[in-house]
Amino acid sequence: MAPLPAGFLYGQWSLVYNALSFGIAAMGSATIFFWLQLPNVAKGYRTALVITGLVTAIATYHYVRIFNSWVDAFSVVQSNGAGGDYVVSLTGAPFNDAYRYVDWLLTVPLLLIELILVMKLPKAETVSKSVQLGLASAIMVALGYPGEIQSDLGVRWFWWCCSMVPFLFVVGSLLVGLSDATSKQPESAVDLVVGARYLTMFAWLTYPFVYIIKSVGMEGTAATTYEQVGYSVADVVAKAVFGVLIWAIAAEKSHLEETGKLVGK
Amino acid sequence: MAPLPAGFLYGQWSLVYNALSFGIAAMGSATIFFWLQLPNVAKGYRTALVITGLVTAIATYHYVRIFNSWVDAFSVVQSNGAGGDYVVSLTGAPFNDAYRYVDWLLTVPLLLIELILVMKLPKAETVSKSVQLGLASAIMVALGYPGEIQSDLGVRWFWWCCSMVPFLFVVGSLLVGLSDATSKQPESAVDLVVGARYLTMFAWLTYPFVYIIKSVGMEGTAATTYEQVGYSVADVVAKAVFGVLIWAIAAEKSHLEETGKLVGK
Repeated sequence: MAPLPAGFLYGQWSLVYNALSFGIAAMGSATIFFWLQLPNVAKGYRTALVITGLVTAIATYHYVRIFNSWVDAFSVVQSNGAGGDYVVSLTGAPFNDAYRYVDWLLTVPLLLIELILVMKLPKAETVSKSVQLGLASAIMVALGYPGEIQSDLGVRWFWWCCSMVPFLFVVGSLLVGLSDATSKQPESAVDLVVGARYLTMFAWLTYPFVYIIKSVGMEGTAATTYEQVGYSVADVVAKAVFGVLIWAIAAEKSHLEETGKLVGK
Repeated sequence: MAPLPAGFLYGQWSLVYNALSFGIAAMGSATIFFWLQLPNVAKGYRTALVITGLVTAIATYHYVRIFNSWVDAFSVVQSNGAGGDYVVSLTGAPFNDAYRYVDWLLTVPLLLIELILVMKLPKAETVSKSVQLGLASAIMVALGYPGEIQSDLGVRWFWWCCSMVPFLFVVGSLLVGLSDATSKQPESAVDLVVGARYLTMFAWLTYPFVYIIKSVGMEGTAATTYEQVGYSVADVVAKAVFGVLIWAIAAEKSHLEETGKLVGK
């Protein structure tokens, strides 16, 4: 990452600190929820649920790392001995934000795959869609990183545009390509599948906007604060809240299969 | 290892840092995936899947160790107090790269055994192939190490050549010896088994090339950076991605057995 700016207010610093801790708690508890639900869904949906939990488990690991990196990068002490305001200064240790990109490189393809798996498409379609969307999303993340570590605005915009090409392909596939498949879902699960697809698009759209906070010339401590809080909230929605929908789809379809209402689908 | 060179750029240092953290996340999440899938495969494939998870579990342990050793060997601080670029210097603590060889000594024989087990050959063939390939691969790793810790190029090449003898034996066995056995696999699993064999060969071939980065006279910080990133990527492919193929073979064959399509095979 570009070096951290100096001059964080205590309120800014602790907003990021608490957002990162919120990320650990939300991702960690979501992981446990998904895996504890494994025996309650039919065998055909367990791989989707295992992967749903893996996505939040990988995110938990990275949020612990980002949190520790954030703490190590700052020294926070009371001025004038006890009783004064808290003063935040840089220790000189780097804040490694690349953890986010390493996380996305693993989790974004996986969460597309969990959505495809829970739809239980024909096998060949499952494999081809997983490969297509998985690869496109990994390329999207890889193309975003060179811009993220730049402070040159032109270069940031260049990589943002490159990254938007696979981004639009994936979002387009979710919107159009999977809509046929959605219509083949059992009636009581259609709303959930539609919900999962729109939640993905909504959550995903926040990332390019958070990315351009620094590209539109906003800089300094406010930009870093917005960026960290924005990515953290978007991650929780895209992984944990999204995962709850995946679990709900798996549970509903398991119920239909058990009661014999999903035979022949 | 030979002592670390001085003069790492922050970009080089953090590329290795992030590659090692990626190793922890990828190996750790793969381990959980394999073990959570245990109840979903037939009993006859569970030992293969247990070992698949062991390989990535052992690798997770070693990647945590290598990561910590890498962090301890360097001091990274911002120059000119706050706001300057990050400067990387050596602390004098050793970077213990022998972790990689200890890891390979355990995991390489195991991952050959998991491939043999998932093929479900006749018992005598399973035992003889496991012993042959397991021993040859352990000798291969042991012969590579004396060269890895050398900076004398002649001695490096000598041990590289020694190590290539069992290497070629193992790769040859995978290519030729197992191809007969592959043809006896059920039709829908043949592609996966063939895929696993070629992935092994492809991933394995990257190791001798990463090894010779320093043998062809490249030295300094760039050589160490390429070496660490190269080994990390090769490890993730050879253990985690390979393991996913082993799981897919086990799941497919379990499904065939349950539906009665694999009787008599």
